[in-house]
Amino acid sequence: MGCTEEHASLSADVLIKADLRGIDSHGVARLIGYVRLWEKERINSRPDIKIIHETPTTATVDGDAGLGLVVAPFAMELAIKKAELYGSGWVSVKNSNHFGIAAYHSMLASERNMIGLAMTNASPLVAPTFSKERMLGTNPICYAFPGGNFPPVIIDMATSAAANGKLEIAQRKNEALPDGWVQDVNGNPTINAHGLKEGGSLLPLGTDRSHGSHKGFGLSSAVDILSAVLSGANYGPWVPPFVSFLEPLKDQPGQGIGHFVGAMRVDGFRPIEDYNKNIEQWIRRFKSATPIDETQKVIIPGEPEYEAEEINLKNGVPVINAVLEDLATLAEKFRIEKVA
Amino acid sequence: MGCTEEHASLSADVLIKADLRGIDSHGVARLIGYVRLWEKERINSRPDIKIIHETPTTATVDGDAGLGLVVAPFAMELAIKKAELYGSGWVSVKNSNHFGIAAYHSMLASERNMIGLAMTNASPLVAPTFSKERMLGTNPICYAFPGGNFPPVIIDMATSAAANGKLEIAQRKNEALPDGWVQDVNGNPTINAHGLKEGGSLLPLGTDRSHGSHKGFGLSSAVDILSAVLSGANYGPWVPPFVSFLEPLKDQPGQGIGHFVGAMRVDGFRPIEDYNKNIEQWIRRFKSATPIDETQKVIIPGEPEYEAEEINLKNGVPVINAVLEDLATLAEKFRIEKVA
Repeated sequence: MGCTEEHASLSADVLIKADLRGIDSHGVARLIGYVRLWEKERINSRPDIKIIHETPTTATVDGDAGLGLVVAPFAMELAIKKAELYGSGWVSVKNSNHFGIAAYHSMLASERNMIGLAMTNASPLVAPTFSKERMLGTNPICYAFPGGNFPPVIIDMATSAAANGKLEIAQRKNEALPDGWVQDVNGNPTINAHGLKEGGSLLPLGTDRSHGSHKGFGLSSAVDILSAVLSGANYGPWVPPFVSFLEPLKDQPGQGIGHFVGAMRVDGFRPIEDYNKNIEQWIRRFKSATPIDETQKVIIPGEPEYEAEEINLKNGVPVINAVLEDLATLAEKFRIEKVA
Repeated sequence: MGCTEEHASLSADVLIKADLRGIDSHGVARLIGYVRLWEKERINSRPDIKIIHETPTTATVDGDAGLGLVVAPFAMELAIKKAELYGSGWVSVKNSNHFGIAAYHSMLASERNMIGLAMTNASPLVAPTFSKERMLGTNPICYAFPGGNFPPVIIDMATSAAANGKLEIAQRKNEALPDGWVQDVNGNPTINAHGLKEGGSLLPLGTDRSHGSHKGFGLSSAVDILSAVLSGANYGPWVPPFVSFLEPLKDQPGQGIGHFVGAMRVDGFRPIEDYNKNIEQWIRRFKSATPIDETQKVIIPGEPEYEAEEINLKNGVPVINAVLEDLATLAEKFRIEKVA
């Protein structure tokens, strides 16, 4: 696409990290979609990523329509640099694109004994409580906490009841959805896997008012405001679609999509040894919480992805045929020789 | 109780703010509970609240077992001072007690054109996904965003499916609960309003695995780690109970309960006028999102509490008889004359 060697390599790293962690929906499967957006000139392969506003511990970054895969690490490295100097750093980003898995970015901090936070807004698919209109993306939040002798505690979650990737799996299999994920075009609950495509919307975490959907809506709103109202990106229904066949709305109030990232030094609060002792006890204690069913213990956030990475690093990453075919198409288009 | 005039007045302000905002469960109704904890020497009415660790933008505060009602504002004022100097400020707190409504603290920031964040851990009532053991509190998170010409956007939410206050109402009325709030002592779903008292537990936001309870569990974990593992307070099942008739567990790993608060200057990211223009458009656009039912429009987070405050400031705060009787008991105990 004309990316610099450095950007191409970083992008590959972000995508492969998703596949390693078992989050196939955000891995190399996405590559062809990025290429299509670049062909439509909605992704700039040679961005001039710039700090446009800052204080010692805050900044706004203009991603110059670059791949979120390179814009978000730029922002996070800036946050980390500020944290090294002042204890914490917070960066809001405008004019960016899809940034892959949030955990990649927040883990840049946790690997350096900092607490990392990464969030992004996204194309509107989720309806607020009481509405049938798609107003918010699945707007993920990811906290990464150093885990001492354990793997880091990684809380990486869409603020909708279900991530869009889970819907896509049900669509491909033509299966009914669990209740509580989607409402139809009239705002009625549906288990139709195609309910979203037929004009419906995803439901916020909490599903309905009685189960706290206003909380999922609130969290998603916080992500939207921190990522876009604070940076000058697009928010709410104006966030540009991730797919090249849908055009962005006219009269956009901002530029591109928005992210928000941050880092805080653990030793800005207490000596790292004291923190480590306590986080290790926290993890041990939660792992040993009394299970309902002896065969299913409590899962520490991030544990399944860590285990997937351990396995995939040994055995290689399983890739489905459809994705391999996409990659072959791309290789041909860009005349890249296949490595045997 | 022997509080200084300043602390007594601040505490009253925090409690009355809750009543004004219609959150009766956290208002003057709590006063008698604080007094009982003080009588058990679990609340120190003359705390020496101290910064025990800091960088330019981070700090840990030891609340010296004081009322959370005064410890949390101390921490937030410190965060705000750091934000004034460096763009942002973050304070973790140990050795504190119940801090009232989170919104009081985060709004100290939003009133000064900053984004405020306040969270606290709490006595264990919530079971992690797959567990039947109470391991976490209702651990609320509150974001406060300045709203320009509109009231601030206040996202103040327990990370459980339902707040404990709502359960208490159903218990008093002896009514069945909505499904999805509580599980019984064996981890089975129940609608019994007394299910919690009979050894059950509250469910995380998301209710069950299929609807994202692991996300509610993850958010609650983030609150616990930021509030307590980072500060040296108690976490998980060791968080001391809010009620005086339950004793804290032995072998506590930390001191008291923990909070985490923070502030970021909006103009650390962009000029306040630009932010205001966009947040006002954000609010207008979400208020006009297509409703499912024309009679129930989308509610902006914080709107109902703002409206309650407007009404209560005019008409006075309704207080139920049981609370008035508690206040009369306290007045007699401390020989305070009733103002007619």
